[in-house]
Amino acid sequence: MGFRELARAAQGELPCSLLLKNVKLLNVRTAEIMENTNVGVYGERVAYIGEEELPATSVHDCKGKYAIPGMIDTHLHIESSQVTPPGFADAVLPRGTTTVAPDPHEIVNVMGVEGFRLMLEASKNLPLKVLMMVPTCVPSVEGLETAGADLFAEDIEKMVRMEGVVALAEIMDYDGVVRNRDRMMDIIEVGRKYGVTLDGHCVFLTGKPLSAYISTGIEACHENFVPESAIAKLRAGMDYVKIRNLELMSRLAPDPTGYASAFAGALQNVPDKRSIIFCTDDIMPDVLLQRGHLDDVVRTVIASGYDPVAAIQGATINAATHLRQHDIGAVAPGKFADIILTNDLRKLDIDTVFTNGELVAKGGKMLRPSQKHAFPESSKRTVKLAVPKEADFHIRAPVENGRVKVRTIDMSSLLTTFAIEEVEVRDWIVQPDGLSTLAVMERHGRSGNKNLGLAKNCLERGAIGSTISHDSHNVTVMGRNARDMQLAVKTLIERQGGVVVVDEGEVKANLELPVAGLMSEEPIGVVAEGMRKVRAELKKLGRDEPWFLSVWAIAIPVAPSARITDKVLVDCSRTQEVVPLFVR
Amino acid sequence: MGFRELARAAQGELPCSLLLKNVKLLNVRTAEIMENTNVGVYGERVAYIGEEELPATSVHDCKGKYAIPGMIDTHLHIESSQVTPPGFADAVLPRGTTTVAPDPHEIVNVMGVEGFRLMLEASKNLPLKVLMMVPTCVPSVEGLETAGADLFAEDIEKMVRMEGVVALAEIMDYDGVVRNRDRMMDIIEVGRKYGVTLDGHCVFLTGKPLSAYISTGIEACHENFVPESAIAKLRAGMDYVKIRNLELMSRLAPDPTGYASAFAGALQNVPDKRSIIFCTDDIMPDVLLQRGHLDDVVRTVIASGYDPVAAIQGATINAATHLRQHDIGAVAPGKFADIILTNDLRKLDIDTVFTNGELVAKGGKMLRPSQKHAFPESSKRTVKLAVPKEADFHIRAPVENGRVKVRTIDMSSLLTTFAIEEVEVRDWIVQPDGLSTLAVMERHGRSGNKNLGLAKNCLERGAIGSTISHDSHNVTVMGRNARDMQLAVKTLIERQGGVVVVDEGEVKANLELPVAGLMSEEPIGVVAEGMRKVRAELKKLGRDEPWFLSVWAIAIPVAPSARITDKVLVDCSRTQEVVPLFVR
Repeated sequence: MGFRELARAAQGELPCSLLLKNVKLLNVRTAEIMENTNVGVYGERVAYIGEEELPATSVHDCKGKYAIPGMIDTHLHIESSQVTPPGFADAVLPRGTTTVAPDPHEIVNVMGVEGFRLMLEASKNLPLKVLMMVPTCVPSVEGLETAGADLFAEDIEKMVRMEGVVALAEIMDYDGVVRNRDRMMDIIEVGRKYGVTLDGHCVFLTGKPLSAYISTGIEACHENFVPESAIAKLRAGMDYVKIRNLELMSRLAPDPTGYASAFAGALQNVPDKRSIIFCTDDIMPDVLLQRGHLDDVVRTVIASGYDPVAAIQGATINAATHLRQHDIGAVAPGKFADIILTNDLRKLDIDTVFTNGELVAKGGKMLRPSQKHAFPESSKRTVKLAVPKEADFHIRAPVENGRVKVRTIDMSSLLTTFAIEEVEVRDWIVQPDGLSTLAVMERHGRSGNKNLGLAKNCLERGAIGSTISHDSHNVTVMGRNARDMQLAVKTLIERQGGVVVVDEGEVKANLELPVAGLMSEEPIGVVAEGMRKVRAELKKLGRDEPWFLSVWAIAIPVAPSARITDKVLVDCSRTQEVVPLFVR
Repeated sequence: MGFRELARAAQGELPCSLLLKNVKLLNVRTAEIMENTNVGVYGERVAYIGEEELPATSVHDCKGKYAIPGMIDTHLHIESSQVTPPGFADAVLPRGTTTVAPDPHEIVNVMGVEGFRLMLEASKNLPLKVLMMVPTCVPSVEGLETAGADLFAEDIEKMVRMEGVVALAEIMDYDGVVRNRDRMMDIIEVGRKYGVTLDGHCVFLTGKPLSAYISTGIEACHENFVPESAIAKLRAGMDYVKIRNLELMSRLAPDPTGYASAFAGALQNVPDKRSIIFCTDDIMPDVLLQRGHLDDVVRTVIASGYDPVAAIQGATINAATHLRQHDIGAVAPGKFADIILTNDLRKLDIDTVFTNGELVAKGGKMLRPSQKHAFPESSKRTVKLAVPKEADFHIRAPVENGRVKVRTIDMSSLLTTFAIEEVEVRDWIVQPDGLSTLAVMERHGRSGNKNLGLAKNCLERGAIGSTISHDSHNVTVMGRNARDMQLAVKTLIERQGGVVVVDEGEVKANLELPVAGLMSEEPIGVVAEGMRKVRAELKKLGRDEPWFLSVWAIAIPVAPSARITDKVLVDCSRTQEVVPLFVR
């Protein structure tokens, strides 16, 4: 196990493999900064911290630099960064994330348990520690959508038993939990049986239903759109709340001004902050390269007024404790030597990164890329639907001619709402007029469902189609005309996945994501460039989306509030209510 | 598992079995006090906390009272309270301790693995949660003493695998760890293999050896005689330090004045206190009844200047996290309903105690005593030595007549020291004169060893003998004359264990402790009365010992600094150095 050698190295009986001299070490347990500290590393782990000298084969003078533990991301979907685990590791390690606990529920919604196994496989032998969480809600809600798999307790148990698993991931069918539905309760029972962390997702729950949710053993939630939501969960007895990037979150707020500082201020007022954790959830490749990863989340909350040390604790020791991992999250003897050097705890520049005692990144660059990992061909043939005709994008009306009232989705915000509009019907076909048509088309070769809807404040022209479409990842397309929509879908099928922007019968941008229609095996720089092109072309169609694309969120029936799946229109203002397109 | 019903009770779909109304609830994770809170309990666990109403079959109006989690003692030896687990449970529950993680190393030093099994057995089905730690150092140091068993890694593994075990207990052969000796390293490897908490004991370690000790994965230490020692361990990267009763500890300090407040002040200065835990270690039955248990430790540190909320956190959530127990340590949905009501967080009066959702104690009294548990007869026949003769207490000198220099143990403090004295020798026999004679006699029927020494500042007259004598619990006797010493030992053999005070050929006090020579099956009140009698009679012999008896600590070769075992005289000023009685 190596701890015998570690104890010898701590006393200079064996030379350390690495000695960081004169760091200002942040002790994340006591919240103290220890000046002039030497950190002795032997192999993968820290052997010594203190003021004494030790023999070492590699010595770094770190005068002026702070040493903090490598950061731990406790809730994220690697697939959202559109690269496979090796590419993801190379993207986040230079930014100080040394451990992630991903929920691979995007690929599992497409490929089921096999997708989980592939992600575990692809995450092995990386300098990034990957502690896998098991997706629990596939599909996100029972009966409302067609995913590539329907997972029940026995599937969850198969995954929990695999090596490298630490938790059940966001248990987001909170209504299923609160209503004691078998699917969710059986899944929770599996998690309890294996003693893993139960992670949650319970946007909007308060009062008794929130207590009910927590009472099952679910210990954390990252769905906090307003600070009151996070504070309420802590006061209801939840062990942890997770906070995402406040700047990105502010884009969902009715008024972004002051959002981040109000949020950070509310968190800062919590007397003991051990329960506050930071996480990334979904970070797009171009955003990741431009802004950063968990480091950006932490920097943003500090800039918004949260205590820098508490912020770093939230991304290190609090996260490790939540994940029940005892050898990460602190720079201390016996722990893995995952260490960041930074010049300023407030600015949190990521100067140098060590993982498992090895220098992996400096100045924001990996020293060498992680070994590539090829996903099998079967994972690259997942867009299983026939090429549609233009007519497939025409909405049939209940009247032959005249005007009807329809329930449109107002897409001015990612937090969509329903709006009632009148539209003209000619020869049984709705004339969308100023509206966009939405289509969600099952792509897993299961039901063959196709569902159409209407949206306002969506596109001005053209169409955008995507095989990323949370969480079932059916082919989702929005457009102002059937021809462009048809071409978008045809392209997605031909390329077996990605994001396509079409205008006037021409493909303007085409980001290829062949692995499960979600990820690319290319480096993140290539994918980010493709993503930037998508955003630029989409902007020409009238949508400026510098962060998340609306097309990805329109089909998820657990997000507020107006959603469309391959089956139904859903009102998710509080729980999930199926509503008709045509209003009588 | 019951969590389905819990979730229903949280929402009023099933009536709660208990509702505590209008408490001021201390949220130990956020350190906030939540006024006017209702706590709904269903069966063993908390279902709901909040301001709403819930139906319940039993309702307590708790207006004006604080609710805090039941306290958790992470380091203690039940045997030191001289009662078996049921009697111990009844003593500590009314004082607010609802979970203990005992190290039964006293009985294991006498009876080996079988003693461990007996304590596990005796701890079942109590209203007190008993999370057992496995003794790791039996005997405390290799080769220096004869215990009833010599445990190695394979024995430790047998115990770790038993149900109800959570940790390896105080790994106190720190020298064995630092020097990489096989016995300790193999034992640590067992703990690491089973993923249990590794608890420590490393008085005096600093610098590189301390780093070495911590690097093996040992995460806590309760041996902190001065605040600097606790702070140094935290700064060296240890996860937790445990603090005992500062008032009792002050009795070991050169100057008790200001000791507690200096200690509490140093702890108070640690910015984040998550790593600070409180524990009892060894509390005698009369002291327990008079002062309290963990409640007294917490009250004392608060009275000495430590923040009351942090103090309670140290006895609840910090302790639970250290023990890797996720369903104790907080009053929150899903956690066990182990709850204390108190009128004042600073005075910490223990008004009412619930465990597993049941009212167990009120006003310092158990509602009904725990069910008795009979230890087997074999556990009551452990004082295995022949009745000695008076001559057995005569020290043979290396000269026939004249004066010789001897290394005496100065017993003015529990932290004994060596002192060189000259004594007269007549006919090869040392004449102790103003000194007391010490005898440690192996009592496990193994070596038959007997070792004699001399002490100053010990007794003025008579003798005291005990089968409690940490950690090997050999018969240990101190006396001013051989006749009284002989009678003391004879009485201990006849009664098969206890503490005996003799003067002028007469037994003055005789506390019987037949279970392993350490514990009584009587209620603690009976034992405490016996203990008070021992102390009163001992005072007449010239030793006033209101807390710990010196006779219990004289034979433990891991405590500072002058010790005598059944084999040798040991200087434990830093490590363990065997020294001769006669000085040349």
